[in-house]
Amino acid sequence: MTAGSFAGSTCVVTGGCGFIGSNLVHALFRAGASVRVIDALVDGHGGDRRNLDTLDVPVLFADIGEPVVADVVRDADFVFNIAGQVSHTESMRNPLRDLALNAVSHASFLETVRSVNPGVRIVQTSTRQVYGRAGGMPVDETHETQPVDVNGVAKLAGEQLHLVYHKAYGMATTSLRLTNVYGPRQRLTSNELGFLPVFFRKAMLGEPIEIFGDGLQRRDLLFVDDVVDAVLAASAMVAIGQVFNVGHSRDYSLLDVARVIVDAAGSCVPPRLVAWPADHKSIDIGSFHTDGHKIVEHLGWNPRIGLQQGAEQTIAFYREHPWYLSTT
Amino acid sequence: MTAGSFAGSTCVVTGGCGFIGSNLVHALFRAGASVRVIDALVDGHGGDRRNLDTLDVPVLFADIGEPVVADVVRDADFVFNIAGQVSHTESMRNPLRDLALNAVSHASFLETVRSVNPGVRIVQTSTRQVYGRAGGMPVDETHETQPVDVNGVAKLAGEQLHLVYHKAYGMATTSLRLTNVYGPRQRLTSNELGFLPVFFRKAMLGEPIEIFGDGLQRRDLLFVDDVVDAVLAASAMVAIGQVFNVGHSRDYSLLDVARVIVDAAGSCVPPRLVAWPADHKSIDIGSFHTDGHKIVEHLGWNPRIGLQQGAEQTIAFYREHPWYLSTT
Repeated sequence: MTAGSFAGSTCVVTGGCGFIGSNLVHALFRAGASVRVIDALVDGHGGDRRNLDTLDVPVLFADIGEPVVADVVRDADFVFNIAGQVSHTESMRNPLRDLALNAVSHASFLETVRSVNPGVRIVQTSTRQVYGRAGGMPVDETHETQPVDVNGVAKLAGEQLHLVYHKAYGMATTSLRLTNVYGPRQRLTSNELGFLPVFFRKAMLGEPIEIFGDGLQRRDLLFVDDVVDAVLAASAMVAIGQVFNVGHSRDYSLLDVARVIVDAAGSCVPPRLVAWPADHKSIDIGSFHTDGHKIVEHLGWNPRIGLQQGAEQTIAFYREHPWYLSTT
Repeated sequence: MTAGSFAGSTCVVTGGCGFIGSNLVHALFRAGASVRVIDALVDGHGGDRRNLDTLDVPVLFADIGEPVVADVVRDADFVFNIAGQVSHTESMRNPLRDLALNAVSHASFLETVRSVNPGVRIVQTSTRQVYGRAGGMPVDETHETQPVDVNGVAKLAGEQLHLVYHKAYGMATTSLRLTNVYGPRQRLTSNELGFLPVFFRKAMLGEPIEIFGDGLQRRDLLFVDDVVDAVLAASAMVAIGQVFNVGHSRDYSLLDVARVIVDAAGSCVPPRLVAWPADHKSIDIGSFHTDGHKIVEHLGWNPRIGLQQGAEQTIAFYREHPWYLSTT
């Protein structure tokens, strides 16, 4: 399904003030959907009301585990459950908080949805972090899930809860395991939300991008518009009860990712290699390359934007919206 | 390692008033270990102080997530983390409670152990329920984990947390995925703790064992003494950071399991087939047969007690301890 298919429908986006969530809200709003947002604006996360600009969209500021969300989801056609804690390092400093936000809240949310709107279509975003270190690449959906950090454990539980509610109650759930995502409306000022926002911030500020280790670890990356398209595509009926990897067929070394971003920013400060900080090294997964055949075959989704084009669009966006580079 | 290796060591058993936990406590006590028990005696679970008989063993009545457990684990040599919620149906009625007991409490417990005794050897018991419906049999440890109920999700998270604390912090953790277990000291009076205690209770009371569906679904089963041996064997250094299936090479149809138990009880009331109750059918996994090669090869553990012998020993125990058949 493309954005146009949602015209006139009622869509709930949890985490809708966050990075991926807000881009999804913009796409659905543009397509003519009636969009409602639930966001807890948890401190240190990506949620910011400014990500929705001046969109005329109601926002319930609440944790998805709170009973009050029932009123928002009761008559919805689609629920895009994007809310979550994404920081791997933070999940190790505060494991209980990560479990609360990525697993327990989702159990409450599913119970709420089951009681007030059990037939609603639900797409939830999980992460390739559930796999842990890849045993062989590329990694498809049958690869063992052996997370290396609490975030991976909790996100896997959250994902599996959605699929349990399909198996046990016939609820129309789908989960997507996303690779690293970049693009507009990402919180750039935190060092805790993955390497990509840090790379963009440093490149735009003319600071050297610091890469941990030898920079040869490889990743596939997605521009957020492609992720939005994947989330919408995953609301097709054929996807119900399924989990899909969402990644890119091309992978890069982190050093090459940094170079592309530096070039796109017109910076003349090359990236530099630094020693691994202990709290990152202990949960590093090394190289990872997503096998995305399943979503291509079942849903016809394919990423359309390569790293160079995506980096340029990303930097153009932040040049127009410089507050993202400011910590105030 | 066999029970004798633990003479003189200090062992903590969480869930030590429960079914498997109390049998482990008895074995360690007999072997000359100094044993300490932590048990929350959660209502409806298998924990009962009477399972420890008159053993001179200190018991801390607390949830493993409470800070007070620090004093119990601080100078221990071994932690056998057996505590958990085992009811599949109950996990669907109260998903938050299952997540709290099987995942969140374990995260707190691991944080406590990490802060006061990070070098302690930890063996945790998980369940074959983490696999969900078997995609092919027998099921080894690389099989996809796709739980069909909240209990499977939460137990998998609890297990994975233990392995994360090994990977990230070098803690000496091992997890065991147990198949269905029967034997002395199991709570027989609940219908929520699996089919085996129900089968034993009904056979001993001369009531018909009711089997859901056609009775042809197959399982492998373990006598609790074999599970105790597996838990002790898993504390060998070579097992650190590993997860092992613990099952039996022989599987039976549930109808045959019931017949063996009826015979062992000397009952003349045959089992009967009944329609699936909805709350069981929705989370049924069908047939399951454990592939236990890994633990045999790595740890040399093999079950020693077959179903007929185990059923006879079990019934002899409950005849000597009839309070297990009473609800008061």
